[in-house]
Amino acid sequence: MKQRKRTKIADALSPEKIGEEINIKGWVRTRRGNKNVSFVAINDGSTIHNLQVVIEMEKFGEDFLKPITTGASLSVNGKLVASQGKGQTVEVQAEEMEIYGTADPATYPLQKKGHSLEFLREIAYLRPRTNTFGAIFRMRHHMSFAIHQYFNDRGFYYFHTPIITGSDAEGAGAMFEVTSFNLNNVPKTEDGSIDYSKDFFGRQTNLTVSGQLEGELGAMSLGAIYTFGPTFRAENSNTPRHLAEFWMIEPEVAFYDIHDNMDLAEDFLKYLIRYALEHCKDDIEFLAKMYDEELPDRLKFVVENDFVRLSYGEGVKILEESGHTFEFPVHWGTDLQSEHERYLVEKHFKRPVILTDYPKEIKSFYMKQNDDGKTVRAMDVLFPKIGEIIGGSEREENYDKLMQRVKETGMNIDPIWWYIETRKFGTAPHAGFGLGFERLMLFVTGMTNIRDVIPFPRTPNNAEF
Amino acid sequence: MKQRKRTKIADALSPEKIGEEINIKGWVRTRRGNKNVSFVAINDGSTIHNLQVVIEMEKFGEDFLKPITTGASLSVNGKLVASQGKGQTVEVQAEEMEIYGTADPATYPLQKKGHSLEFLREIAYLRPRTNTFGAIFRMRHHMSFAIHQYFNDRGFYYFHTPIITGSDAEGAGAMFEVTSFNLNNVPKTEDGSIDYSKDFFGRQTNLTVSGQLEGELGAMSLGAIYTFGPTFRAENSNTPRHLAEFWMIEPEVAFYDIHDNMDLAEDFLKYLIRYALEHCKDDIEFLAKMYDEELPDRLKFVVENDFVRLSYGEGVKILEESGHTFEFPVHWGTDLQSEHERYLVEKHFKRPVILTDYPKEIKSFYMKQNDDGKTVRAMDVLFPKIGEIIGGSEREENYDKLMQRVKETGMNIDPIWWYIETRKFGTAPHAGFGLGFERLMLFVTGMTNIRDVIPFPRTPNNAEF
Repeated sequence: MKQRKRTKIADALSPEKIGEEINIKGWVRTRRGNKNVSFVAINDGSTIHNLQVVIEMEKFGEDFLKPITTGASLSVNGKLVASQGKGQTVEVQAEEMEIYGTADPATYPLQKKGHSLEFLREIAYLRPRTNTFGAIFRMRHHMSFAIHQYFNDRGFYYFHTPIITGSDAEGAGAMFEVTSFNLNNVPKTEDGSIDYSKDFFGRQTNLTVSGQLEGELGAMSLGAIYTFGPTFRAENSNTPRHLAEFWMIEPEVAFYDIHDNMDLAEDFLKYLIRYALEHCKDDIEFLAKMYDEELPDRLKFVVENDFVRLSYGEGVKILEESGHTFEFPVHWGTDLQSEHERYLVEKHFKRPVILTDYPKEIKSFYMKQNDDGKTVRAMDVLFPKIGEIIGGSEREENYDKLMQRVKETGMNIDPIWWYIETRKFGTAPHAGFGLGFERLMLFVTGMTNIRDVIPFPRTPNNAEF
Repeated sequence: MKQRKRTKIADALSPEKIGEEINIKGWVRTRRGNKNVSFVAINDGSTIHNLQVVIEMEKFGEDFLKPITTGASLSVNGKLVASQGKGQTVEVQAEEMEIYGTADPATYPLQKKGHSLEFLREIAYLRPRTNTFGAIFRMRHHMSFAIHQYFNDRGFYYFHTPIITGSDAEGAGAMFEVTSFNLNNVPKTEDGSIDYSKDFFGRQTNLTVSGQLEGELGAMSLGAIYTFGPTFRAENSNTPRHLAEFWMIEPEVAFYDIHDNMDLAEDFLKYLIRYALEHCKDDIEFLAKMYDEELPDRLKFVVENDFVRLSYGEGVKILEESGHTFEFPVHWGTDLQSEHERYLVEKHFKRPVILTDYPKEIKSFYMKQNDDGKTVRAMDVLFPKIGEIIGGSEREENYDKLMQRVKETGMNIDPIWWYIETRKFGTAPHAGFGLGFERLMLFVTGMTNIRDVIPFPRTPNNAEF
């Protein structure tokens, strides 16, 4: 075969290239035809669209062409021409071909027919080869890049907080333990307790549930930082909304109050969704067609409307007076459930909502206390279909007030003495929030199960691949 | 105080703004002066440079000004004027001030005087407030962003490979175990072994040592991917070159051979270093002045010169014939030590070097075998001062050859059956490499201890903060 620089299919699908002799490489999606001519649709991951290769049977011979079945990997030299067929504008007339790898139709799990999302979850090592997961994972890339670009353009620094940690950011939430011990023979002290001084780090360590506490150290020195990394929860929740391993984005900004924080959250989310609409048009169109016709409108709607901002107290009052029967009763002091959040967003305001000033009892110890003695400067951003997509707050920067909440909640501050100390040395107002990346991905793709927006989901009893 | 939009110091340090009434916020680095006037240098993390605030003592009174010591956090309203003093072009004449937080000189560990890097490591929660670590972590951000931008511009997709895994990518290397077990009471089966079916994931799980194997799944569907995430090694190595938790970048590309792979690695590294020279000028200048005068020249040198490419065999021959006495003797078949790599780079070629075609015995099972039966298509990129900065290879895409290496090396493929299967279904040539992010950071900052280029280093007996 003649050596030729490969053209990606995303670049080949352009009328400007008609007439060029090109090389394409990729995997067979479908093959159809008759005894004279074969039409082979090739995909190389660069776009949701396939490129059709037209093969004259006589030129290559039946024996050569036989292994060209769904899943096989090919290199094709040929001329790019305007297509006479329906469904594509250009196609390649095969002149030379090499088969890199075959895919026996008797054993290859991804045949032409559609597959259920459940089935594809079981073969997560192959599902990125499907249209659906190609689209989702390309969008996952674009959203990741948009996040970095947004913060970089605004002078925020990407700050790598630790994954292995001796502290628990939330003071709650089940954690995975990280150890080098041989679990058959865990060292004990004389009194029979585990001798962590003999473990790798000389102490008990866990997987982080949030980078916020360390992120605040970054904000109090670099001014404005963000994290974007994996976080972990060992809760035994087998639901379409929970993962044991997920990615989180946590900006933290010195000298921000809760209003600056809300402005940032709204601007950030709109930027990301606008970016998706601009950079992922074909993939969104495909997902809308296959799964969720309202997806494009829902995305545009968020970009075009101001988020409603009101207090938790006002929100609860609306829910109480709504006349709607909720599965979980609601009154001042209860933590809001997804049904309450979605009622406010989808039925009442018909816009994204930011709730602020939650009762201190249902929020974390580090949130700034309001003068009423009852509420804290928390903010949750609520989205249609998703419920809470962002949670954040202004932080309590006053040492005495912070220590009072530590005492009230009975927290053990031994592992986070350094966090407390920042309130002694040059403390300053600051605020931040956390965006669950997979929640965002659910929103922009229209998918409904969180296991379908991360390549290799980790859930109870599942760490395959 | 009058409410005014804050100006970041990086933006205030511009002659264009002279005459404007601005607000700045930040932390006091130094204070000097006499009984009439105080000069307070403020830093807010946006740049290595401080902004000088000129305070007339009479205007604010001694009592108010007393707590303005190193580390205190301030908000200042004032006029930006051309500076009469040496060392700065502009300064702020304080009109109104608020002290957010004080820092008692008796207890605040970061006083004006310089501190050793060793001491600063012990107070890693405060060290980002120093000039040195401000510069390093700003550069860490810029390098991270450059990595994402490089790949995004070239059609690579960021692919999130799992952190918790049931497999070991290298077939070697000590791993951390992840568990939900109560280590005081690990469930056992009837025969006395650990009953992992009762653990969170229903199996034994570890922290990943590399995303490569899953990354290959991405490349064989999306075409070109990269990872950028934390990886872990539980080796008890207490050296300036090893971390238990570090970040790695791993591109993987379908249809690439080892030459494409080398081209990518060289272009990528040059892009990153050029980006540092363009975007981190002030920070590099500071680090050069304080730690390593040759840093800027070393960076420019890499950008301006082609990397030398030769085989491992040729490299060993040069070392054998060099007449140089190495601590570790070198001959065909030995793994190269840092002293050998640095000899080739620094003494012999005086340029970065890419070595290829290593003996298969010292490389991983998945590397493509050459026809000589002895070597594999591995490539290591060697840098001055660092030694190996990138390791990669073309991958063995032939099922039978891969399985032969699996047998020779005695690997257990049960946990990676899915990896092996990709060679059955549409296999194709592909290649990739891994760049240790902290190795890159050592190179671009000129620092010599890897604990100084990551915010919160994890090493044996150290998981503080």
